[in-house]
Amino acid sequence: MTEQGAKIKEFHSTGELASFLGATLKGSPEIQITGLGTLEEAGPGQLSFLTGARYAHLASQSNASALIVPPSFAHLEHTLLICSQPDLAMARVAHLFSKPLFLNEGIDKSAHIGSNCEFGSGVRIGPLAHVGSNCRLGSSTRICGSCYVGNDVCIGDDCMIYPSATILDGCQIGNRVIIHSGAVVGSDGFGFVQDDKGRHQKIPQIGVVQIDDDVEIGANCTIDRARFGKTWIQRGTKIDNLVQIAHNVVVGEDCILISQVGISGSTKLGNHVILAGQVGLVGHIEIGDRVRIGAKSGVPHSVKAGEDVSGIPAIPHKEFLKMLVHMRRLPEFREELRQLKAKINELEKAKHRD
Amino acid sequence: MTEQGAKIKEFHSTGELASFLGATLKGSPEIQITGLGTLEEAGPGQLSFLTGARYAHLASQSNASALIVPPSFAHLEHTLLICSQPDLAMARVAHLFSKPLFLNEGIDKSAHIGSNCEFGSGVRIGPLAHVGSNCRLGSSTRICGSCYVGNDVCIGDDCMIYPSATILDGCQIGNRVIIHSGAVVGSDGFGFVQDDKGRHQKIPQIGVVQIDDDVEIGANCTIDRARFGKTWIQRGTKIDNLVQIAHNVVVGEDCILISQVGISGSTKLGNHVILAGQVGLVGHIEIGDRVRIGAKSGVPHSVKAGEDVSGIPAIPHKEFLKMLVHMRRLPEFREELRQLKAKINELEKAKHRD
Amino acid sequence: MTEQGAKIKEFHSTGELASFLGATLKGSPEIQITGLGTLEEAGPGQLSFLTGARYAHLASQSNASALIVPPSFAHLEHTLLICSQPDLAMARVAHLFSKPLFLNEGIDKSAHIGSNCEFGSGVRIGPLAHVGSNCRLGSSTRICGSCYVGNDVCIGDDCMIYPSATILDGCQIGNRVIIHSGAVVGSDGFGFVQDDKGRHQKIPQIGVVQIDDDVEIGANCTIDRARFGKTWIQRGTKIDNLVQIAHNVVVGEDCILISQVGISGSTKLGNHVILAGQVGLVGHIEIGDRVRIGAKSGVPHSVKAGEDVSGIPAIPHKEFLKMLVHMRRLPEFREELRQLKAKINELEKAKHRD
Repeated sequence: MTEQGAKIKEFHSTGELASFLGATLKGSPEIQITGLGTLEEAGPGQLSFLTGARYAHLASQSNASALIVPPSFAHLEHTLLICSQPDLAMARVAHLFSKPLFLNEGIDKSAHIGSNCEFGSGVRIGPLAHVGSNCRLGSSTRICGSCYVGNDVCIGDDCMIYPSATILDGCQIGNRVIIHSGAVVGSDGFGFVQDDKGRHQKIPQIGVVQIDDDVEIGANCTIDRARFGKTWIQRGTKIDNLVQIAHNVVVGEDCILISQVGISGSTKLGNHVILAGQVGLVGHIEIGDRVRIGAKSGVPHSVKAGEDVSGIPAIPHKEFLKMLVHMRRLPEFREELRQLKAKINELEKAKHRD
Repeated sequence: MTEQGAKIKEFHSTGELASFLGATLKGSPEIQITGLGTLEEAGPGQLSFLTGARYAHLASQSNASALIVPPSFAHLEHTLLICSQPDLAMARVAHLFSKPLFLNEGIDKSAHIGSNCEFGSGVRIGPLAHVGSNCRLGSSTRICGSCYVGNDVCIGDDCMIYPSATILDGCQIGNRVIIHSGAVVGSDGFGFVQDDKGRHQKIPQIGVVQIDDDVEIGANCTIDRARFGKTWIQRGTKIDNLVQIAHNVVVGEDCILISQVGISGSTKLGNHVILAGQVGLVGHIEIGDRVRIGAKSGVPHSVKAGEDVSGIPAIPHKEFLKMLVHMRRLPEFREELRQLKAKINELEKAKHRD
Repeated sequence: MTEQGAKIKEFHSTGELASFLGATLKGSPEIQITGLGTLEEAGPGQLSFLTGARYAHLASQSNASALIVPPSFAHLEHTLLICSQPDLAMARVAHLFSKPLFLNEGIDKSAHIGSNCEFGSGVRIGPLAHVGSNCRLGSSTRICGSCYVGNDVCIGDDCMIYPSATILDGCQIGNRVIIHSGAVVGSDGFGFVQDDKGRHQKIPQIGVVQIDDDVEIGANCTIDRARFGKTWIQRGTKIDNLVQIAHNVVVGEDCILISQVGISGSTKLGNHVILAGQVGLVGHIEIGDRVRIGAKSGVPHSVKAGEDVSGIPAIPHKEFLKMLVHMRRLPEFREELRQLKAKINELEKAKHRD
């Protein structure tokens, strides 16, 4: 009856899993696996995994009933599923055991649906959700309970909009996009002009937000609509919780933005950029492809493709590390300087005596 | 029928816009303007603007059908609307093209309204919104869908409370206030006393939040209620997304608080204070009028009116800039110190030889 | 009829309060106290308190009708409630005057309740709230209006879930837990593996969040569910607004996490840890019991029990303070170095002249 009942099997045998993964099985194909765990925490009936030598000591002691390992660990005494990328394999297995948030089929009768909407097949809308007028939802997209989707919103296929997320008027969402609870997409950009009395007059924000395929937006993120045009998150980018994206920002493809990052207006990121936690970027700069920015850094200027930068203000990461070493040795420098001074005084006195 | 249908015109002619702005028109008054854009992005039918020499090279290449420019650019070959403050003019025009979030007239039948409320004329309340008991809403105020307004809340005229915002019991909101989605106004202040077992006992937070006229509160901000009395945001202050305002904080008039700022309990800001992104202020300090605090700074003490400060901990901005230069040159100092030491050793040896 | 009508008295006499607190009364037992305030703000009819000598000058001028004071201030001329811990006493009195957010008895008819739930006696569920299927709510627990509680959620006794909070599927909440508005408990952890095209493939997050007794979670916090197993907040820990807790983090007992803190995945905190505002911790480290971390610090490695650390990256707090002093004196060092160089040049010239 229920989605969960239909889709989730309670267990998978080691033989089934080996075949699902295209892995080489060493040991019994009949062991029933009912869940997953870390090497330390997994118990009987659970599957765990080892990616490399660093955790090998934990593998030998693990109580897991089976392990996914790379070929270099084929000698372990556990039941083994041997394959070249154990982390990727583990992620694939986790999907088998993952229960998607349950939503009844169809549209809950307590949801509010505006006029003139077009919904693809298999759309599910949860209790007390709001979908405005003139919206298009692609097939199999889910709007969970207590979400707010405004007017003129277009969402592609196979999207998951978690409970209590808010997508405001006119925003455009691609396919397979995941938006977590409490995220706000399409709030006004922060723009004012001062009038002659020094008061801040609002600049209307008449643009939208566009989110491309395979993007994930974390819980309680805020993504502002553009002043004109669009704020744009491109394909495959993954955004952690509580991140702020200001108006007219462009984030390229396959970027990773860790929690509590803030990006100011009109800044542009290339592809495969990584921003560590609590990084802040000023507005109107460009961050090149594959740039990595260290945690808590503040970036006041553009950064060229491929660079690693850190610090407040951010400088090349290697220079930053050297600077830190020198900063910690400042008291020592100070003492050396004092000693040199004393010696020079001595030398000067000696000279005068000559 | 609908609000949008009633208020939004699809286009405005250059002649109408010149007259609306009190601008001097150079060129045809008959060009139909259907939207706005930046100099780089605006295309046919769109209006753009130029504020000064910095972007003049973009103006000459712009595909916009007309430009708002200051008198010093009256020589450009585009159709021009010439006026003294192009940025203010552009903001005014943007209002003409801005579609306010659509809300049907009156109170949606799926909204929950408590007892004993008084609503001014033209109040609109969206689907699945909650307004508690004993609330007063001024005329033309809008509570969008999925908002939560608690009991004993008073909101003035012409306010806009965006979807999924939360205003808790007893809070007082002025006129023309805008509160964005996901903002929480009136959560408990963070206050505990340790009992003799070292456990944290909650101090009830029995005060409220007062927000004065013309304030704007960003998406997913949190503004805590006072322990006693009130947390107070004064007239004209604009707050970006994800800002934290603790209990009993007072923010003066016309301040600008950029995204992810945090202000600790009982701190007081004067008027026209600017806090850049991710700034943190400790509790129980005073920040004078017109103080500006650089991005990511941490401020552990009061700051006098008119000062600019930066850094962790914050120091006068000019001193901060000098310190940064010296920090980057530390490896060089180190090398100089090493060389001096060698020279002194030589001198000492020479002396002993004498 | 209403909860407030039943529980809240409008005033308490000084005699009643002395008896409630076990305090020694000096002065009239007949004074009617109608509210609380700070020494500076409390007026006639209000009670205030003094904890020590620091604010004694304010006490003598206070307009409060009565003061809670320690025995060392029994000489003050106000009506006094004398007891050993005035701050704890004040918190206890504040509870008498605190109006809990009003909720009608029972389950509002506009709430959505799934199937197969078990509710203890005195459970209240507000308008437009969502409680999924297979949930257990302990006695006297309140789910306020517009909350979202998912499926398979277990919440203990006497909990308060404020409006617009979100608790996702499978999470486990203890007794007397308070969760503030906009908080999200159980969002997906942020975990991806790169496939051979460099694209980020989602690792399903199949664990839960467990929150133990007497925990308080601030407004708009995000607490991610575990990859496997659980993210775990232990008894008595208090978390301020906008804090990020990543997947598989363990926070010990009686910790204090100030606003805008971020804790990365799998990091473990001991008991009585204090993280000041905007602190960031990397993943997979251990923070010992009673560690205190200064505001805005970034912590890249484990910290031993009892240590105080500060800075980016964090170092022992005392060393950090010394380093700051030396940093501010860098221009001075520079100048000294320049002078020494000049003197050495002189000495060298002199030597060559010899």
